[in-house]
Amino acid sequence: MSEVRRDIVTDTWVIIDTENDTIPKVPLDEQKSKTDCPFCEGQENRTPDEIYAIRTDSQPNNPGWKVRVIPNIKPILRVEGELKKIGVGVYDMVSGVGANEVIVETAQHIRHFFELSQNQIELVLDTYRVRIEDLHRDKRLRYILIFKNHGRLAGASTIDHPHSDLIALPATPIRVKQKLNSAREYFGYKERCLFCDILQQEIEMADRLIFQSERFVVLAPYASRFPFELLILPKHHSFSYKLISESEIKDLAFVFKKILKLMYDVLGEHPYNFVLNDSPNLLPQSNYWKTIEQDYHWHIEITPRIHRSTGFELGTGFHINSFSPEKAASILRKHL
Amino acid sequence: MSEVRRDIVTDTWVIIDTENDTIPKVPLDEQKSKTDCPFCEGQENRTPDEIYAIRTDSQPNNPGWKVRVIPNIKPILRVEGELKKIGVGVYDMVSGVGANEVIVETAQHIRHFFELSQNQIELVLDTYRVRIEDLHRDKRLRYILIFKNHGRLAGASTIDHPHSDLIALPATPIRVKQKLNSAREYFGYKERCLFCDILQQEIEMADRLIFQSERFVVLAPYASRFPFELLILPKHHSFSYKLISESEIKDLAFVFKKILKLMYDVLGEHPYNFVLNDSPNLLPQSNYWKTIEQDYHWHIEITPRIHRSTGFELGTGFHINSFSPEKAASILRKHL
Repeated sequence: MSEVRRDIVTDTWVIIDTENDTIPKVPLDEQKSKTDCPFCEGQENRTPDEIYAIRTDSQPNNPGWKVRVIPNIKPILRVEGELKKIGVGVYDMVSGVGANEVIVETAQHIRHFFELSQNQIELVLDTYRVRIEDLHRDKRLRYILIFKNHGRLAGASTIDHPHSDLIALPATPIRVKQKLNSAREYFGYKERCLFCDILQQEIEMADRLIFQSERFVVLAPYASRFPFELLILPKHHSFSYKLISESEIKDLAFVFKKILKLMYDVLGEHPYNFVLNDSPNLLPQSNYWKTIEQDYHWHIEITPRIHRSTGFELGTGFHINSFSPEKAASILRKHL
Repeated sequence: MSEVRRDIVTDTWVIIDTENDTIPKVPLDEQKSKTDCPFCEGQENRTPDEIYAIRTDSQPNNPGWKVRVIPNIKPILRVEGELKKIGVGVYDMVSGVGANEVIVETAQHIRHFFELSQNQIELVLDTYRVRIEDLHRDKRLRYILIFKNHGRLAGASTIDHPHSDLIALPATPIRVKQKLNSAREYFGYKERCLFCDILQQEIEMADRLIFQSERFVVLAPYASRFPFELLILPKHHSFSYKLISESEIKDLAFVFKKILKLMYDVLGEHPYNFVLNDSPNLLPQSNYWKTIEQDYHWHIEITPRIHRSTGFELGTGFHINSFSPEKAASILRKHL
């Protein structure tokens, strides 16, 4: 029998096959890569000028950096131009103002994020903070999304050099709005943060918990959309990634390295995404302004792409997950 | 420059690259297939007993059929059992009551839906109607979704024999709810059907129109989520597929065969889904009961899966489409 579970955070449903014990097969991915890598040290003249970099005693756009942020060479949104709202008959359109950056996570051409040293991951995580802080100054940009695509089946380009993507949007995405609304409703009713309650319940129930560090918890969400979907939650309530402390960054780097290596140990080479689910860039007149500090709680979703969505997912917005989060968590715990 | 277009029907946004002129590359798909096909004529004993079939002078579960509907051998939802709503701490769960059927579209082992004769497609489309009508009698089943997965990258199984899937759900899917709500709001404001207005505007503007038949229109939607996404709309306002007339079925079969062949001519072998977007199974106390006949309008979405979704789509619920619907429509029209 399946269970139809409601995701309390996004108010969507997931059909979970709780009987299946077979780990879904990881699909074959195309292995074609750019051999001639523009993100490697020494190739700085092949990218647009850097926006930000962590470097010591070296000049911008030259070798000698540890993390480097550059504009996407084919940006889907650009910072220049005015934000215009236009009607096209019955339709609505906004001109594509935004930003599209690439965070090159290391000067070395390696394959996996977890192969970086913990210290190097800390630099990447701090770069996320710096870029969000900087882009939030532009009030046309309503939401900064940072994410990673690993593997072609997760939408990665043919450049394998470790990097994450940043897209700044002129509107708050619907999935974020759903989360903000659920969190606010829950707080209105319970006067507690929804994510803090989830955190506490998952630690107590323990069947979907993978591990916890001093400051973070890694778990398989109750209504996991995909086999082996994971959630990283900070234990200390915080609505905004900008406010992350130095010691939290240290701990998050440790957690990231550990969980991505663990996933690799269990699933082998597999396509995945991770997404930083942060607060929107708040305007004083925004609906979310007053309560968001108490009711939202930033988090990171890791989604292996070993299931291919079908017409069902496209038509419904629901998901079918053939492998329960309890089983995924149990297997991952065994490999700890 | 990109355009950020709002999908008026689902209230989501799509970033469309209106400058790109390169047709996206169709990704390589795994070609592994079951050689030993359980859906072929003569193999009836290898499937569960049929639920419905179009046959003349032959016994159930024996050769001599034209279309055959069978339960999915690994159903994700089952009709048996009581619909129970259960709380699991802060979470909610519904027991997995539903139905999961396979509509085998022909006795012959061919590869493409468009290779079927028009008459055979008519039988398939009528089977959709019969199954929806039958399942609507069970009021626990709130929504009947019929869809097709073609190609592994569109989530198809290794059985290549032409078939569509039917899943009956105990809740109305969120994507359908969004459409019902938008349609109702629009009607409340304009006293006209949203889809009828879209239809008329698209015929007048013509730049996203592929072709029209006597009773249907095929167009590339203004806020297409994917390159070459298509929409089939009946010209005559109708909220429910159950009410489709014989002449509409004839015409829809013609349209389906023509557009899928046209897509194949332009893109070559490619993974795609189509989804029938019908009304929910209405209960007299439902919110939608009173107005749905005037404000909803059934339709079919065809979604080629040549773009792979990234962390962006997963994190936002928005889409990035690298090829504008105007360009897709123009290319398709040239191949008519």
